[in-house]
Amino acid sequence: MGEKIFRVNMTNLTTAVEAVPAGWATLGGRALTSTIIAAEVPPTCDALGKYNKLVFAPGLLAATAASNSGRMSAGFKSPLTGTIKESNAGGTAAQNLERLGIKALIIEGLPQEDKWYSIHINKYGATIKEDAEYIGKGNYELIKSIGEKMGKKIGILTIGPAGEFRMASANISVKDPDGNIRSHGRGGGGAVMGSKMIKYITIDDTGGPGVAIAEPEKFKEQARIFAKTLLDHHVTGQGLPTYGTNIMVNIVNEAGAFPVKNFRYGKWEDAEKISGETMHDVIVARNGKPSHGCQAGCIIKCSQVYNDADGNYVTAGFEYETIQLLGGNSLIGDLDIIAKCDWAMDDIGIDAIEGGVIINVAMEAGILPWGDGQETYRLINVEIRNGTPLGRILGNGAGSVGRTYGITRVPVVKNQGIPAYDPRTIRGFGITYATSTMGADHTAGYAIATNILHIGGFVDPLVDEGQVDLSRNLQIATAAVDSTGLCLMVAFPALDVPECFAAIYELINARYGLSLTANDVVELGKYVLKTERAFNQAAGFTNIHDRLPEFFDEPLPPHNIGWNFAGEAIDEFWNF
Amino acid sequence: MGEKIFRVNMTNLTTAVEAVPAGWATLGGRALTSTIIAAEVPPTCDALGKYNKLVFAPGLLAATAASNSGRMSAGFKSPLTGTIKESNAGGTAAQNLERLGIKALIIEGLPQEDKWYSIHINKYGATIKEDAEYIGKGNYELIKSIGEKMGKKIGILTIGPAGEFRMASANISVKDPDGNIRSHGRGGGGAVMGSKMIKYITIDDTGGPGVAIAEPEKFKEQARIFAKTLLDHHVTGQGLPTYGTNIMVNIVNEAGAFPVKNFRYGKWEDAEKISGETMHDVIVARNGKPSHGCQAGCIIKCSQVYNDADGNYVTAGFEYETIQLLGGNSLIGDLDIIAKCDWAMDDIGIDAIEGGVIINVAMEAGILPWGDGQETYRLINVEIRNGTPLGRILGNGAGSVGRTYGITRVPVVKNQGIPAYDPRTIRGFGITYATSTMGADHTAGYAIATNILHIGGFVDPLVDEGQVDLSRNLQIATAAVDSTGLCLMVAFPALDVPECFAAIYELINARYGLSLTANDVVELGKYVLKTERAFNQAAGFTNIHDRLPEFFDEPLPPHNIGWNFAGEAIDEFWNF
Repeated sequence: MGEKIFRVNMTNLTTAVEAVPAGWATLGGRALTSTIIAAEVPPTCDALGKYNKLVFAPGLLAATAASNSGRMSAGFKSPLTGTIKESNAGGTAAQNLERLGIKALIIEGLPQEDKWYSIHINKYGATIKEDAEYIGKGNYELIKSIGEKMGKKIGILTIGPAGEFRMASANISVKDPDGNIRSHGRGGGGAVMGSKMIKYITIDDTGGPGVAIAEPEKFKEQARIFAKTLLDHHVTGQGLPTYGTNIMVNIVNEAGAFPVKNFRYGKWEDAEKISGETMHDVIVARNGKPSHGCQAGCIIKCSQVYNDADGNYVTAGFEYETIQLLGGNSLIGDLDIIAKCDWAMDDIGIDAIEGGVIINVAMEAGILPWGDGQETYRLINVEIRNGTPLGRILGNGAGSVGRTYGITRVPVVKNQGIPAYDPRTIRGFGITYATSTMGADHTAGYAIATNILHIGGFVDPLVDEGQVDLSRNLQIATAAVDSTGLCLMVAFPALDVPECFAAIYELINARYGLSLTANDVVELGKYVLKTERAFNQAAGFTNIHDRLPEFFDEPLPPHNIGWNFAGEAIDEFWNF
Repeated sequence: MGEKIFRVNMTNLTTAVEAVPAGWATLGGRALTSTIIAAEVPPTCDALGKYNKLVFAPGLLAATAASNSGRMSAGFKSPLTGTIKESNAGGTAAQNLERLGIKALIIEGLPQEDKWYSIHINKYGATIKEDAEYIGKGNYELIKSIGEKMGKKIGILTIGPAGEFRMASANISVKDPDGNIRSHGRGGGGAVMGSKMIKYITIDDTGGPGVAIAEPEKFKEQARIFAKTLLDHHVTGQGLPTYGTNIMVNIVNEAGAFPVKNFRYGKWEDAEKISGETMHDVIVARNGKPSHGCQAGCIIKCSQVYNDADGNYVTAGFEYETIQLLGGNSLIGDLDIIAKCDWAMDDIGIDAIEGGVIINVAMEAGILPWGDGQETYRLINVEIRNGTPLGRILGNGAGSVGRTYGITRVPVVKNQGIPAYDPRTIRGFGITYATSTMGADHTAGYAIATNILHIGGFVDPLVDEGQVDLSRNLQIATAAVDSTGLCLMVAFPALDVPECFAAIYELINARYGLSLTANDVVELGKYVLKTERAFNQAAGFTNIHDRLPEFFDEPLPPHNIGWNFAGEAIDEFWNF
């Protein structure tokens, strides 16, 4: 297919361009990063040590005309969870890499000297440059400065101070088309990049070979069908474009699954203060953008630009999980201060979901009072940004805060913070959090779709029956979608509309001249999960680690049900 | 046998006196605490949560006239390692408990209110008292004050500020006969006691039933033989009484296994500055006590009292591991400042071995300069004592420091710091550190005895052959000795002199009217290890966790050999 593997060795400071091994040719995104990590990284290695690798791979449909196809996967062994990790993000880097014909960028080794570097990729190859110019700088400043030097179309992957400090919550930021920030958020990829002493990577696709479509007419037709199903579906065509992911505030609160005061209650009287509807009105009143695409070709546009009262930019890509965890779960009923925190987390380069749970646990530990938005902002923007001892504790993740302060009400699975959906009352999420190969992660198997939104059928969120099957099906589907380069949001119509699902594999077929069937998609998802699970088992994980924290046995008001799923029942997840 | 189990429930604030279950009747010390923890504590529970228990059990020979028989075991699930834990100590508490006929004290549950308590045990039972009088106070002040109120003969178990903060390196201190401090050091028992909101426990044996010897004449004769073998052996009769455990400085340095600068070198040019011989001369010159027993009935007296230049008390129980880790491994060639650090760790209640490794890793992370004794003392006595954010990071253990600062040169196994013997050049220790049921612990299987001291035979310390068998035999023997209440130091003559070994089980036979054989001792040791291993496996540990940190593959000067023991070879340890 004319594609290549770019390999960067930070120990010897050498780069290489390699042919794509036969077994990797039809893989992309998560399927490819997990395959490479499993093949090349010893599962027991130190995540911040010389044997870990950092792999970037565009999805199979990246840089094509298919809607919402520009996601990139970052793969590594996670310093947060100790498991294999794939974290995917929008932005422009995947499309830039794909236009250069780069199937994967593999970064390995650790520098022998204590020096910082940048990596520059273009049609001639990759160059490693000793480069301390931006050390200590935030992501916004770096992206702006590089854009001024190298042009606005340059793709950028960067870490903020958190990644430099090798904090386990550090993310890898990706420039979006407007020079704002998307993130490979979860799992601490920024710390891995920081351990390799790489501050940023630029991708210049000028003169690259571009993307060849094997069957252009078929591709065009399937892309049309695909786009139409996205626009016609009430979630991707209406809800998300209007309110963003924050449409979830009222839905989850209504369901009694809205985490309040570190998972003590399931419903919050002040939810309206931070809801998607409220946020939409605020954004419109302040001349922000209520709907905005994070990548070229996005027709859902669930992102937005949030301005302050004076109409000045505060943040973009302001998501439900961040708003919920800093809002209801921290008792902060103030979108403006949460937006500032979101900006600070993007600028410093920490995962804005882990960041929310970090603050929840910090409040639990008495580090700051419940509901104190200003102190939350200070902890993030001063303590974490400067890597003070307290900042290190916080930046190292919610589990770190809990351990360091000797408390047990710590909502993590495999040391990763539980996102903004209570697993007791959306019980499919409980199974997803417990069994995900990457620690607690709602995107691994988005059970609320079927538990609450009646998408892809309905499974009662409050009973145990059916949740394991639901989560398994969703996790298999997600692993496949994460390999395509399509945004996970397309799963809403794909679960409901057969032509949408068919269009996904037909687009891949048309792109590469393949003849995949629906069953192949399912098999791909299973392959990905099993590959990841095998890595984790070799790293020392067992079924015992597929469990929720002890405190979830507490009944959650208003439904007053606790988590008491038998371990053996959870373990049925892996029977496929 | 007329003995009882005392049970204290901190949730309901109730106490109970129970009969000894049949299966526990012939168990004591580690065999009993590990049996109780395995029977009553869910392996996956939060170590600081409501399901963990804290068990104290005197050894089988406690409070008898047998030499060196007054050790007590503390058992719990460790907040440091996540494994089962037994930590044993001298001092007076075991003898006090035994004279009251208390076979084990089991403390369970967590208080429902945020209040501190003390527990008082006497011949009438146990009483729980709401008691915040000593909160924030150090162990020395508490022991002195209680002694003044309740009499010098009272037994005391106490936690310092570190235990109150539930730091994972927090120990449980035990009053020695002079009002100084011995410790249930490793594994964070102080944090478990702190989680149960118990500042201290007093044991008043006035009017207790005392100890009945089933066969008094036989006991007397065996005690005589036993004492003689201790006094006749060059280690327990000469080396330890003269120089304490710090006799090891020159021996280990000579062997090239003396950790220097966080395990970078195996030999230190400044070793003489901190050697046992130097220390002996300093103590004598300052009118300290070069030899001192930590419990009534000790004839080895490897403890000592170390004074400052003005002849004022600084510390007691000043051990090789602390001196080595703060000395050679931190490059601090100054016994006086190390002694002050030892005092501070005892007073604050942190494990003085973990404390040493904490400082090694803190220097590695750049928190303080190599060799800076004054700053080491300040970090311990100010930061840890006051529970500042930096103090929390440090007090939470060497692994915590490494994780929080994102570094990988962190000498821990199962998150517990590796003591002051390099596993590359005393390779039997490598197997002990890797396979111990409790994380890195030299006392679990003291391989230097056979690797370097030619006790119990000889296995070349620099080759792999024979180390697994050596460590297995030593760990089995140790598990048995830890159950007797005898100080582990008796293992030196017991490994060399058949009558000494025989005297151990004959003393138990005479005490209880049993007829144990040498084989029964071995079987007891195996039972203990297997019970502990089963708990750990149910908690999620696998063979993968029985490994040394990655950086030990680096060759260690001057022998220039690295650790490259195959995993499968290590796993042979469990074939018994």
